[in-house]
Amino acid sequence: MEKISPLLARLVRRLTRLPGIGERSAQRIALHLLSQEDAETRELSRLLMEAREKIGFCEKCGFYAETLLCPICSDPKRAQGKLCVVEQPVEVLSLERSGIFRGLYHVLGGVISPLDGVHPGDLSIDRLLTRVEDEQVSEIILALSSSVEGETTSLYLGEQLDGRGVSVTRLARGLPAGSRLEYLDEATLSRAFEGRVKL
Amino acid sequence: MEKISPLLARLVRRLTRLPGIGERSAQRIALHLLSQEDAETRELSRLLMEAREKIGFCEKCGFYAETLLCPICSDPKRAQGKLCVVEQPVEVLSLERSGIFRGLYHVLGGVISPLDGVHPGDLSIDRLLTRVEDEQVSEIILALSSSVEGETTSLYLGEQLDGRGVSVTRLARGLPAGSRLEYLDEATLSRAFEGRVKL
Repeated sequence: MEKISPLLARLVRRLTRLPGIGERSAQRIALHLLSQEDAETRELSRLLMEAREKIGFCEKCGFYAETLLCPICSDPKRAQGKLCVVEQPVEVLSLERSGIFRGLYHVLGGVISPLDGVHPGDLSIDRLLTRVEDEQVSEIILALSSSVEGETTSLYLGEQLDGRGVSVTRLARGLPAGSRLEYLDEATLSRAFEGRVKL
Repeated sequence: MEKISPLLARLVRRLTRLPGIGERSAQRIALHLLSQEDAETRELSRLLMEAREKIGFCEKCGFYAETLLCPICSDPKRAQGKLCVVEQPVEVLSLERSGIFRGLYHVLGGVISPLDGVHPGDLSIDRLLTRVEDEQVSEIILALSSSVEGETTSLYLGEQLDGRGVSVTRLARGLPAGSRLEYLDEATLSRAFEGRVKL
């Protein structure tokens, strides 16, 4: 490829840096674009830049927003006073797809992980505490990863929120839907056991 | 998605038009780009346009080229006088990967298919005939699809090339490497039978 067209090789190499795109897919995409009208590539190229330039973060919750506030924070129909705390903006999308939560979000920006140099001060915890007061939050659902770092962060947030008159819960741990026991790891199984509920 | 960020939704929709990219992959790619430095997206956006603008077709063989002639046609080490005829530029890449052919290529631009409105005049057949004379071609290998249209085109080219003092062959038909008989279609099987060779 390099020998054949250095520019094509560069484009393919750049495309393989995208998530889920291997060498073959990258090559197929590059050749597809070369076989299309110029306008097709121009539109994609322009959209990439436009999205990158115009999409920022919501001032309130930290989710993606093209305006000061994201559409969720600006929606008066969402239950005020209920906050779901997630690590990254992408997780808001997952929860929205499930349609299970109709309150507001708060994007933390990560989890506490001293080994990776992420300390509480690096996350938007102060802003969360301010929101709890300003917005008269009555319920907080911690929807963080069920990793050691995620659980540490949940515990830390629990302590910080203690005594502020707000109910704090975290998501249940257990078997994922449709899972067969033989394929599950031990940590999931033992948590599912510990958290077993009466029928 | 549409409700959440119209611009993000547009980018995701545009990405799903790329080959092999579904809704989920498109979303993952879009969010990945939003989480990267601006420069990353700018580089991708620019490379797309640059490749589209600068990569054209080789004047001689019709393969991709950033200059007048492609690197294969400009390479004096390639066997002159041997042409491998393919349908599309991408197939040159496949053959080059295999390293099996060291001559020159000729990209036809498709196959004869009256139902799709593709007639001999729409393909670079005249140019092929001119090359046969100008370049003193002694051998032509037709590497077209083993579809009805591909075979019709091979037969047509065979007639056109007849009496010009050039040896014309087409690729063998038979079992693909590593195939198990039970998974092969009847047409492949019957061709493999017809073409059986002595041990």
